[in-house]
Amino acid sequence: MTKPPASGLSLGIDIGGSKTHGILLDADGARVAESVRPTLTGPEGVVATTVAVVTECLGQASAPDGTVSIGIGIPGQVDPATGVVRTAVNLGISELDLGQRLTAALGLPVTIDNDVMAAALGAANHLGLADGDLAYLNFGTGVAAAAVVRGRLVRGHGNLAGEIGHIPVDPAGDRCHCGQRGCLEVLAGGGRIAARLAALGTGLTLGTLVQAADAGDPGAVAEADRLCRGIALAVQLVVLTQGSERVVLGGGVIHTAPGLVPVVQQVLKARAAESEFLASLNLAERITVIPADYPVAAIGAALVGLRRTRSKQLAPIG
Amino acid sequence: MTKPPASGLSLGIDIGGSKTHGILLDADGARVAESVRPTLTGPEGVVATTVAVVTECLGQASAPDGTVSIGIGIPGQVDPATGVVRTAVNLGISELDLGQRLTAALGLPVTIDNDVMAAALGAANHLGLADGDLAYLNFGTGVAAAAVVRGRLVRGHGNLAGEIGHIPVDPAGDRCHCGQRGCLEVLAGGGRIAARLAALGTGLTLGTLVQAADAGDPGAVAEADRLCRGIALAVQLVVLTQGSERVVLGGGVIHTAPGLVPVVQQVLKARAAESEFLASLNLAERITVIPADYPVAAIGAALVGLRRTRSKQLAPIG
Repeated sequence: MTKPPASGLSLGIDIGGSKTHGILLDADGARVAESVRPTLTGPEGVVATTVAVVTECLGQASAPDGTVSIGIGIPGQVDPATGVVRTAVNLGISELDLGQRLTAALGLPVTIDNDVMAAALGAANHLGLADGDLAYLNFGTGVAAAAVVRGRLVRGHGNLAGEIGHIPVDPAGDRCHCGQRGCLEVLAGGGRIAARLAALGTGLTLGTLVQAADAGDPGAVAEADRLCRGIALAVQLVVLTQGSERVVLGGGVIHTAPGLVPVVQQVLKARAAESEFLASLNLAERITVIPADYPVAAIGAALVGLRRTRSKQLAPIG
Repeated sequence: MTKPPASGLSLGIDIGGSKTHGILLDADGARVAESVRPTLTGPEGVVATTVAVVTECLGQASAPDGTVSIGIGIPGQVDPATGVVRTAVNLGISELDLGQRLTAALGLPVTIDNDVMAAALGAANHLGLADGDLAYLNFGTGVAAAAVVRGRLVRGHGNLAGEIGHIPVDPAGDRCHCGQRGCLEVLAGGGRIAARLAALGTGLTLGTLVQAADAGDPGAVAEADRLCRGIALAVQLVVLTQGSERVVLGGGVIHTAPGLVPVVQQVLKARAAESEFLASLNLAERITVIPADYPVAAIGAALVGLRRTRSKQLAPIG
């Protein structure tokens, strides 16, 4: 059993496809410890990596006694009530009772949540919108969203909320792996973009996409247009559906393609020029990008754990 | 000044483009009085109609003393905090301080809300999902939604949530009056449908659309396909974005076109047959239609007033 460190600490772990990032925050939200390790995949690998990162973070904390809350963000379908994770494909997990496994291994209670949900809380915290209306859009291999309404995550029935990647926006679009046509994920999911860029055979990557499009490369122009249209549509979709005051963009696609977000904002402004209604929404101005080096999902995971612990203190049954 | 009737009554008024409907509920939710009048348009007309309906309902109540809460649902952009209504086009209102006007005329406090927001509360109440996750989709002249998450309306920043009619779902679609192309409202808004049916010149109406499509009329088949696709997409959109457990359909388009909803459910099932992901959502089974004779917006308006009154009792500043 890992000995819990000083009172009022919160530990957040972001389990990603390539690395697992842990951050320990004190009661004021200052980082007091940090650990990053490559993620070993499969159920055993994920548990082992997480235990190692938790142990490393807690070992760096100076005070020997006190309480710590632990929150975990992980891709896939997560039920925060049970801690069970399903279909975390990139981690090689079909089903894993991660909460129980970690609690047993660490001797400490942990709270598990979907990584995009956790990131939305981290983003709300970063923007000082802890009681506000915000959407976090994640453009990774796929496309997903999480909304904070009046300071609380919108989970939906069966934790389904935020699966916006599979909303079709073009009946003539390419087939999505989900079976539908023209899903948002076909336009703006990193997996599809990488496949299309590779098929061009011109050595074009997400890292050079915007620059190449600026230089007039036809393949890059088409791909950048499609990607920016997809991101712009996703922004519009969450604002019109949930009235999000701010839309935070994150994920590998956003951080890998320099210059992308200003082009998305140009697209939104060009669309607004054709529609008084769109212009009234000021969509381009609602966009915020979390800095690539700000560990939004790990910090959000720490908040997930902290909130859960607090709500349990208030209502022991719940 | 109208004398307030017996304790614990709640009065809900649904101000529609053609008629204004008032319903008085007792503390158990039973209807104790009702009044319907044609809506006089323009600011003065709307105020006069509403005062008449309120007076008529309260006059039917037997007990001479006590408290009553009054809630009003009205189309347009409504700020429930101030009671100001903007751009209620079909009522001839560009801006009206309806809350203040009615409070002055009646001598009683009133709470104003958007009619679709009110209807969502009425639907949640009707389905016994007062603490649940539900979306109400209104297919009237335009298309709008309102979501209840954990028993509370999602209003969004600036009361913007629910404007899903102007989410584009087809880049090759017709131009919308908002300036965009292929908005959901172009597919499934009653105004656009009526214009297209009139342009056919075959006497086809919403009332005969599904029957004519069944009989193979090509114009009816095309229009029914487009309409059902739009409704099906709207259902999918709110479920994937907000995780709504139930999706309630209402509005003139739904109630005027007999046989429409089963066709929408067939469309959803056909789409699910092509996508395991969609199949897992059981979208067709999430749909509920409120009976045409159930005054969902008036009852919801009564709930709006009641909730506001209760929250003020709990938090006088609020």
